[in-house]
Amino acid sequence: MRLVLFKYRRPPSIISSSRISVRYISTGLKDKTMATVNKSAHPFDKGRLEALLSRRFFYAPAFEIYGGVAGLYDYGPSGSALQANIIAEWRKHFIVEESMLELDTTIMTPASVFETSGHVARFADWMVKDVKTGDVIRADHLVKNVLEARLAGDKEARGQAASPAKEDEKDKKKKKKTAKAAAVQLPDDVVKSYEVTLAQLDNYSGAELGELCRKFNIRNPDTDNEVTEPQEFNLMFASSIGPTGQHPGYLRPETAQGHFLNFSRLLDYNNGRVPFASAQIGRSFRNEISPRAGLLRVREFTMAEIEHFVDPNIKSHPRFKEMRDVVLVLLDRHVQSSGSTTLMKMSVGEAVEKGIIANETLAYFMARIYLFLLKIGINPDRLRFRQHMANEMAHYATDCWDAEIHNSTGWTECVGCADRAAYDLTVHSAKTGHPLVVREALSKPIVTEKEVPEFDKKTLGKTYKQDAGVLQKHVETLDESALLKLKEELAKGPTTITVKGQAFEITPGLLRIERKTFKQSIREYTPNVIEPSFGLGRILYTLLEHTYWSRAQDVDRGVLSLPSVVAPTKVLIVPLSAKEEFDPLVQEVSSKFRRAGIFSRVDDSNTSIGKRYARNDELGTPYGVTIDFASVKNRTITIRERDTMDQRIGSIDEVIATVTELVEGSIDWEEACRRLPEYDGVQAIES
Amino acid sequence: MRLVLFKYRRPPSIISSSRISVRYISTGLKDKTMATVNKSAHPFDKGRLEALLSRRFFYAPAFEIYGGVAGLYDYGPSGSALQANIIAEWRKHFIVEESMLELDTTIMTPASVFETSGHVARFADWMVKDVKTGDVIRADHLVKNVLEARLAGDKEARGQAASPAKEDEKDKKKKKKTAKAAAVQLPDDVVKSYEVTLAQLDNYSGAELGELCRKFNIRNPDTDNEVTEPQEFNLMFASSIGPTGQHPGYLRPETAQGHFLNFSRLLDYNNGRVPFASAQIGRSFRNEISPRAGLLRVREFTMAEIEHFVDPNIKSHPRFKEMRDVVLVLLDRHVQSSGSTTLMKMSVGEAVEKGIIANETLAYFMARIYLFLLKIGINPDRLRFRQHMANEMAHYATDCWDAEIHNSTGWTECVGCADRAAYDLTVHSAKTGHPLVVREALSKPIVTEKEVPEFDKKTLGKTYKQDAGVLQKHVETLDESALLKLKEELAKGPTTITVKGQAFEITPGLLRIERKTFKQSIREYTPNVIEPSFGLGRILYTLLEHTYWSRAQDVDRGVLSLPSVVAPTKVLIVPLSAKEEFDPLVQEVSSKFRRAGIFSRVDDSNTSIGKRYARNDELGTPYGVTIDFASVKNRTITIRERDTMDQRIGSIDEVIATVTELVEGSIDWEEACRRLPEYDGVQAIES
Repeated sequence: MRLVLFKYRRPPSIISSSRISVRYISTGLKDKTMATVNKSAHPFDKGRLEALLSRRFFYAPAFEIYGGVAGLYDYGPSGSALQANIIAEWRKHFIVEESMLELDTTIMTPASVFETSGHVARFADWMVKDVKTGDVIRADHLVKNVLEARLAGDKEARGQAASPAKEDEKDKKKKKKTAKAAAVQLPDDVVKSYEVTLAQLDNYSGAELGELCRKFNIRNPDTDNEVTEPQEFNLMFASSIGPTGQHPGYLRPETAQGHFLNFSRLLDYNNGRVPFASAQIGRSFRNEISPRAGLLRVREFTMAEIEHFVDPNIKSHPRFKEMRDVVLVLLDRHVQSSGSTTLMKMSVGEAVEKGIIANETLAYFMARIYLFLLKIGINPDRLRFRQHMANEMAHYATDCWDAEIHNSTGWTECVGCADRAAYDLTVHSAKTGHPLVVREALSKPIVTEKEVPEFDKKTLGKTYKQDAGVLQKHVETLDESALLKLKEELAKGPTTITVKGQAFEITPGLLRIERKTFKQSIREYTPNVIEPSFGLGRILYTLLEHTYWSRAQDVDRGVLSLPSVVAPTKVLIVPLSAKEEFDPLVQEVSSKFRRAGIFSRVDDSNTSIGKRYARNDELGTPYGVTIDFASVKNRTITIRERDTMDQRIGSIDEVIATVTELVEGSIDWEEACRRLPEYDGVQAIES
Repeated sequence: MRLVLFKYRRPPSIISSSRISVRYISTGLKDKTMATVNKSAHPFDKGRLEALLSRRFFYAPAFEIYGGVAGLYDYGPSGSALQANIIAEWRKHFIVEESMLELDTTIMTPASVFETSGHVARFADWMVKDVKTGDVIRADHLVKNVLEARLAGDKEARGQAASPAKEDEKDKKKKKKTAKAAAVQLPDDVVKSYEVTLAQLDNYSGAELGELCRKFNIRNPDTDNEVTEPQEFNLMFASSIGPTGQHPGYLRPETAQGHFLNFSRLLDYNNGRVPFASAQIGRSFRNEISPRAGLLRVREFTMAEIEHFVDPNIKSHPRFKEMRDVVLVLLDRHVQSSGSTTLMKMSVGEAVEKGIIANETLAYFMARIYLFLLKIGINPDRLRFRQHMANEMAHYATDCWDAEIHNSTGWTECVGCADRAAYDLTVHSAKTGHPLVVREALSKPIVTEKEVPEFDKKTLGKTYKQDAGVLQKHVETLDESALLKLKEELAKGPTTITVKGQAFEITPGLLRIERKTFKQSIREYTPNVIEPSFGLGRILYTLLEHTYWSRAQDVDRGVLSLPSVVAPTKVLIVPLSAKEEFDPLVQEVSSKFRRAGIFSRVDDSNTSIGKRYARNDELGTPYGVTIDFASVKNRTITIRERDTMDQRIGSIDEVIATVTELVEGSIDWEEACRRLPEYDGVQAIES
């Protein structure tokens, strides 16, 4: 079996290989106004998007001038601001809204912590090496890529489409080149065995992956050389703490352990009450074997994790009623086990009632995750919740759902939402001897009665010497009914007990069995943990794909329709030119926006207004205001909406008030159009 | 000489050993109202503060249940929120206010980058080992502690105060215990030599530190064992990137390199214009040898760094006039070199004019740093700017000032502000071959004329064969006047040149020297960098010290007088009890604060209002509103100010409006008192 303990796993190939064939284009505008904007005039072009993201410095390979390092990326001003805005919204949506306890724990972690959590032993992938070049390849990826390429070649030879009709030409070419599969028809039974293998890929051990390589003659497609037996490679970056070299440490691969280790302090902070949630936003590290998927698989990434601690007996949620009717697209484990990927739409209320989602708290967070993703601009038609299959889920977890977002590479897990049960707190507590428990004062003590055996120690020792322990242990582990029976016998006089073939004579003087009353006024328990865990880089990248489109009239004019709430800049201030006569108005408008709490930027660069707007369409800036001669004369400014390119005009204060409401989301563009007349371009020209 | 290349060095011992003897207590309130609050009734008690910070989970040793790791700390809810608010204010004060370009670059860095920057060779401290136990000690700290302890013992024996009168008793005891120095009088010349050694401590090499240990018989004070020769220990955490183990990497010890490597992209983003600044807030790592000073010296920390790129010829600053009159406390290098620590107060305008601060841009940032620190609550009387001395400054830097904040351990460098000149861009450019330069289109091309020697290649080769190169190189490196002289000679006919003893006959046919005109329309230059670099953990800790005090009536009642702008919670909402009748009002008040953008928390825990307020005084919550029976009956609530414990009363909306203005800083408590009548406690009791 492959390692199933940890979050952010690749979805099983049965899922990831199923591409959806319809292209969705995010609108970011209500239906009524979007009629004027055709966002799907051009098919999605990943190359153009990537060029835009590089040109506008959303992100770039880190250490680029040193040749770069796979899986490490730097965020530039646009990417940093987008990420900061996503984080700010996340903080508002989760931490503030639910009074979560925020944490900021260290990345560098002593090895003992990850030994306990199981990461040292099991947080690993299988890798093989090219026997001649020594190139390293992830074993499951190798098997998957080679078999998929052969199946594609087979389909081609049979005259069938290689894969769903809309697959990018580029992607196809790349895959073919990588795996070097010719259009060769395979025997039907071979096709079948490849398909079965792919469907179970996540379940193979290293040895089994090695066997598959031999059985199917799988070689390094780049060199056609054989590969070695799979070896385990731990994905944590190792280091050493302090000057002696004797204290091994790891960079955390998730922020979660920092929450668990601080559980007692958090519980104290919350006045001993449960449920409560802690939250942390921070960097984590995974030393991926050969990362190649841009921001979707990286070696250093920012996560946002919530650990919601609950009484294991009470997994209802006080605010569930607010979420009950939220409808999600679900792909449950039974559907997947049957080999299907049919999605179903269902309210979380219904899903809990039907037992599809394990409990209210899990369902509550799934709905909250859904609302968060929509708020920042993810297209709901490309968002689904996939349940982990039984063999895929961590052994301690009771249920786990991934929010998967569809993008040009298929469905990508972006948020995991798992019920981790009491696993982590239990293992750390056992290891350190520090109780990580809730002690609940019972309003009504629990009173229980039971039979209790009590030996006369002196007589017992004298009578049975070294065998005394055997007898005592035997009696003390008898159940209630056996004790009652023994009690009855003893009431009649001495009796005999046989333990492991040895007979012991028991007298009423040696053993007394009495009914005693126990009163428990404190209930002590290890809470369970519901964990929503967000990969922010993956969300950011899929958001960029969902909001990117090109103007119908010119495929080179890219637009990012980012919602105002996450757009790096909310308003661009564009003076007609850098002439001094516009300065006082630029100052005035800037400072008024600043006072209204709206982040604006001035672009007075020496280029046409049209070019400046085009540049800001690429940056996702939702609104622009132009200051021209009419502004100087009449104190009017125009406002331009990014997606429609509509322009309206009004007094400086009217426009600023309208933009403020637009950015805060209290009105939409339609309403803004009702308030402000259309700009016909005459005012400026006349001046 | 010790390593002087990097930021966050310990100030030289001549400085750090000079304690200021007056205790400053931050007020956080204007003079007019503070009369009622006596914040200095009790002397500062570090133990009490630390107990508070632990109890209220500002921060705690990381991995505490595993025994902890020196130099690693986790921030709890209060500390995280305080840090997040400091960062938010930093972002507003620097990034937004000056339209800086924010970056978020990776922590994991390939070794080659730090080889170029000099960190691999030089980012190190000297350590010694106890010859028997193997315990590791930083060499300079060992020398300092032992000699200081002996000097203290000497003073005691001479019947003098051991150190400035107000030194904490605890500190003294600790130091004595650590260094085990008895009250032994030393000969006068020994005292003198110890003092000279301490004053120069930062200048000693490893070998010299070893010599000092032998000369002064310095041993490990914990065991009285001898120590080994000092060895260099690099402070970067090392790791390995990827699965082959062939790509060494380091965790960055500063965020700065990420700015420099992205310089070309940043310049592009800024449309090729200089000056501009990039900014980054992020985690950095230093594997300190034996960190022991709480948050002041840690192995993992959050920094905020600005790299302001300027034309080396234009270090004026367009907004300098706004800062010109800001008065700073300065400790310049000349004063320090003379062995004094006399501070001087001076406006940055005057300091630039007098050449004390090297240039306007550096001075501009020093003033901005000062204003930022004041805004978040640092006591200006405990803040100074210390200039690096000539031998302490990096060899490439032109000037460097540290903002040092005074606290219970002495003066601590919290912000460095250096002119790094063109060093970093130059070395990375040289290493990678990627030009990290500004290309400025000159509005008026620069026209220059010079003499240019030109050989007739064919004749040259034929005449001098393998010696031709020697001759050519010699002539081409002649200066203008030598060329003119040669030109004159050639005008007369053949002449002879002697190069390294060899005579060459030169004819007018072989060499022509002509005056040529050169026109340069692009100016290419490597910009200089002014770098303000903030250690946020150090600032946070000193802020906690500056704002902590105890109520005059009860030393156990600690208060953190954090300004609203950084306080983790702005308003505490306190219902008289958890009774349901208060719920609607609690909801209403909460949601009204949320809409006003004021972060509030409800405390309806089962304890007295007084205790709940006391708990929130410890958390630094500036305001509290109480909801009681009068609130239900009359819709009035009371507001309590943390420092004065004044209570005022008003209608719900009046109080919310007043608190909003207080938190936003547009009114002070005095003004609030004018608006709202005093609460006499009758209203609630009557109900």
